[in-house]
Amino acid sequence: MLILGIDPGLQKTGWGLIESLGSALQFKASGLIKTDAAQSLPGRLSFLHCELCKIIEAWSPQSAAIEETFVNKNPASALKLGQARGVLLAVPALYGIDTAEYSANKVKKSIVGTGHAAKNQMGMMVKTLLPACGQVSEDEADALAVAITHAHYGRRAPHPLKKVEQKEGS
Amino acid sequence: MLILGIDPGLQKTGWGLIESLGSALQFKASGLIKTDAAQSLPGRLSFLHCELCKIIEAWSPQSAAIEETFVNKNPASALKLGQARGVLLAVPALYGIDTAEYSANKVKKSIVGTGHAAKNQMGMMVKTLLPACGQVSEDEADALAVAITHAHYGRRAPHPLKKVEQKEGS
Repeated sequence: MLILGIDPGLQKTGWGLIESLGSALQFKASGLIKTDAAQSLPGRLSFLHCELCKIIEAWSPQSAAIEETFVNKNPASALKLGQARGVLLAVPALYGIDTAEYSANKVKKSIVGTGHAAKNQMGMMVKTLLPACGQVSEDEADALAVAITHAHYGRRAPHPLKKVEQKEGS
Repeated sequence: MLILGIDPGLQKTGWGLIESLGSALQFKASGLIKTDAAQSLPGRLSFLHCELCKIIEAWSPQSAAIEETFVNKNPASALKLGQARGVLLAVPALYGIDTAEYSANKVKKSIVGTGHAAKNQMGMMVKTLLPACGQVSEDEADALAVAITHAHYGRRAPHPLKKVEQKEGS
């Protein structure tokens, strides 16, 4: 199963692709989508949309995973992140790909073994689990971490989110 | 100029289309996009995306306008609204349509003449300005109000937001 992990952000979005074969994990690709702050907000959001479409069309992942957003910040920051996140959640669904959401604690527990791992511990464990990924940015490591989490939990429960069904006229 | 006004929301999004010819305004169409709360979040967001695409393809508006979101609520609500708003901002940009943003006060001032108008006053004024719209929901009236605001202000300043330019590789 080819899994696409996403670490959302308006300024930069990390993505990572892993192949999960039984208990074996293999790094496939990762990258960063950076938007130009000089562009308009709709322009930046449509750029995110288009770049994620290109990744999905190039790799045809069967499944996607994203970290649940922990909103401890002010409402203005939550709105800003939400706008980017909304676009990134909609795109896989447009291709019929389900996206699973995992809490930050679940991701940490899955990667490091404890829910309170430090940021650099996560990155180091991702590199240990996926040696072929080499030197990746923090956002790419986070995206790969949520993909690994989905490889672990996705086996047990087919999908934590309800399947997408378009509503039909009653 | 055919203007699409949008009143964003995850549960229901109001939209309204008006034709602006000089100082004359004409109602064209309006409606509500309702998402099914039983669906997954990615499913609801992609449904919003697809429905807005259908409206744009059916009517080919030249311009779009949306109300600036006032985030006085908690961060969780802001995140939720932001996710829907992000999708609705990205779609017109995918069709090369610029979306202008107006503050709630600017919309009220443009419609009622004062920045502190009551909700029902707004709806009544929208019906007075666009008699052909008939009985519309509150969300449709809000969408039509922001489209009317854009018809007023869009004439003076060509566009309040920077034009969308896709970043090219340096």
